[in-house]
Amino acid sequence: MAYEFYYRRLVHWQDTDLAGIIHYTNYFRYMDEAETEFYRSLGLHKLKDSSAEGVTCPRVSASCDFVSPAVFGDELDIHLWVAKKGRSSMVYEYSFKRAQKAQEVAHGRVICVFSERGRNGQLRSVAIPERFDRVFQVAPFAIDST
Amino acid sequence: MAYEFYYRRLVHWQDTDLAGIIHYTNYFRYMDEAETEFYRSLGLHKLKDSSAEGVTCPRVSASCDFVSPAVFGDELDIHLWVAKKGRSSMVYEYSFKRAQKAQEVAHGRVICVFSERGRNGQLRSVAIPERFDRVFQVAPFAIDST
Amino acid sequence: MAYEFYYRRLVHWQDTDLAGIIHYTNYFRYMDEAETEFYRSLGLHKLKDSSAEGVTCPRVSASCDFVSPAVFGDELDIHLWVAKKGRSSMVYEYSFKRAQKAQEVAHGRVICVFSERGRNGQLRSVAIPERFDRVFQVAPFAIDST
Amino acid sequence: MAYEFYYRRLVHWQDTDLAGIIHYTNYFRYMDEAETEFYRSLGLHKLKDSSAEGVTCPRVSASCDFVSPAVFGDELDIHLWVAKKGRSSMVYEYSFKRAQKAQEVAHGRVICVFSERGRNGQLRSVAIPERFDRVFQVAPFAIDST
Repeated sequence: MAYEFYYRRLVHWQDTDLAGIIHYTNYFRYMDEAETEFYRSLGLHKLKDSSAEGVTCPRVSASCDFVSPAVFGDELDIHLWVAKKGRSSMVYEYSFKRAQKAQEVAHGRVICVFSERGRNGQLRSVAIPERFDRVFQVAPFAIDST
Repeated sequence: MAYEFYYRRLVHWQDTDLAGIIHYTNYFRYMDEAETEFYRSLGLHKLKDSSAEGVTCPRVSASCDFVSPAVFGDELDIHLWVAKKGRSSMVYEYSFKRAQKAQEVAHGRVICVFSERGRNGQLRSVAIPERFDRVFQVAPFAIDST
Repeated sequence: MAYEFYYRRLVHWQDTDLAGIIHYTNYFRYMDEAETEFYRSLGLHKLKDSSAEGVTCPRVSASCDFVSPAVFGDELDIHLWVAKKGRSSMVYEYSFKRAQKAQEVAHGRVICVFSERGRNGQLRSVAIPERFDRVFQVAPFAIDST
Repeated sequence: MAYEFYYRRLVHWQDTDLAGIIHYTNYFRYMDEAETEFYRSLGLHKLKDSSAEGVTCPRVSASCDFVSPAVFGDELDIHLWVAKKGRSSMVYEYSFKRAQKAQEVAHGRVICVFSERGRNGQLRSVAIPERFDRVFQVAPFAIDST
């Protein structure tokens, strides 16, 4: 079972703003990319495997603390881990550091809930499908900050 | 029948880059927004009306010339017009100016083709559905620059 | 003094993803837009007025709960208010609803800190400049959820 | 001297739209990323080396033809080459293919002009600085499509 992943991401020109630093919304984009790569590293395809189970996994919450501004050309090492697993929800945490540096640049957290679409078109939560449940486990170093 | 539309768009902080000017990819985003608003002004909903006709209208080409850099806080007046209408294609042109100014900031052009999905999943072009065909006409001032 | 602002934003095609709903990172983009428009409504220019004071106001934290997925063509009414004011920090909250609907679609929160660049290039917090301090006040209905 | 570069890019969830395909504006974002990586592969830092020369290199034109829609999870191999070199301008072309596939997905072209800021704040073109001029040459297979 898997509980963590490392993803390196270059801060691109278009990710910066006129203040000369990364626009903060991009941290959330990077988190999304890291999660997809985590799935891929495990042989999972987020769309196809979800569709096969008839589920989707929308985010219900996302947050990020921005500690030190990253700039164009910085390489960020993003450490993603499973911070919590509920009946239907998964919590990912993300720590951003500059490559080879110890200082944290940002720290994020995303909650997603496995859901299916009911007859009325509304989403309702379902238990994590076995296909995903057997793959992911909570990181042993995760701190429950609920 | 309609052939033009004006859309005002503020250049937002997140649309700029570290050079202090709008990142050029955003002109294409603004064009997209202007087209949606053009549809709305005519009582059309790009998704629902396309779905009702069983068609989609992907872009096959997009281009833009960047004349003078826009900056955070600039209000851009975007003039959109139908530059050409084929059997299945529509060509939109876009002229960007700062509000109340004569100088052009940018000039774009987008070609989209009404298409349906064949049995093999491939898109193939179809004649512009009557629902759209009766609404749009080529602007009398359009110059055929094919 | 001002403490709230309403901003209407159309969910554009490019703001959606393959799940057919708004990609969640765009809520943060909308929050940013709303804040800029709030400043504008008060005669302030976020860049020029900040530069005049020698300060910048980076975000140190952003979070959002996603309650009900918005889709292409939805008009969102974004209610922004000042939730808290510290010596150097401002907390904005944002409530997203579909136009004319009561149900909340999303609820966000952003913390920014007025800062200046020290000799070593590092940012350090400063008291909110008087130019901004005299303009903004905490909304009387704000709930301190620190 | 260098004239080409290959850049592999995964189509991420956030790069798609409700039509289930990549939103076309992202091709331009990918082109930008590829150019930065090209610079990096040559030991150049687009911002620092440009600043050292007192120049900037804004795009004056960008275009792309979209041949076959890419979807979430596609790996795109982007082939970038120098298509033309003028006194102050560089033209890059980009061919997008799915990894290990021969069919072109998209084909783009970007023109940028080395410029410096005059006393009046306006940009004016300058000869390509020697620092860049000695590094880049036109690809032998480039076709002048001016």
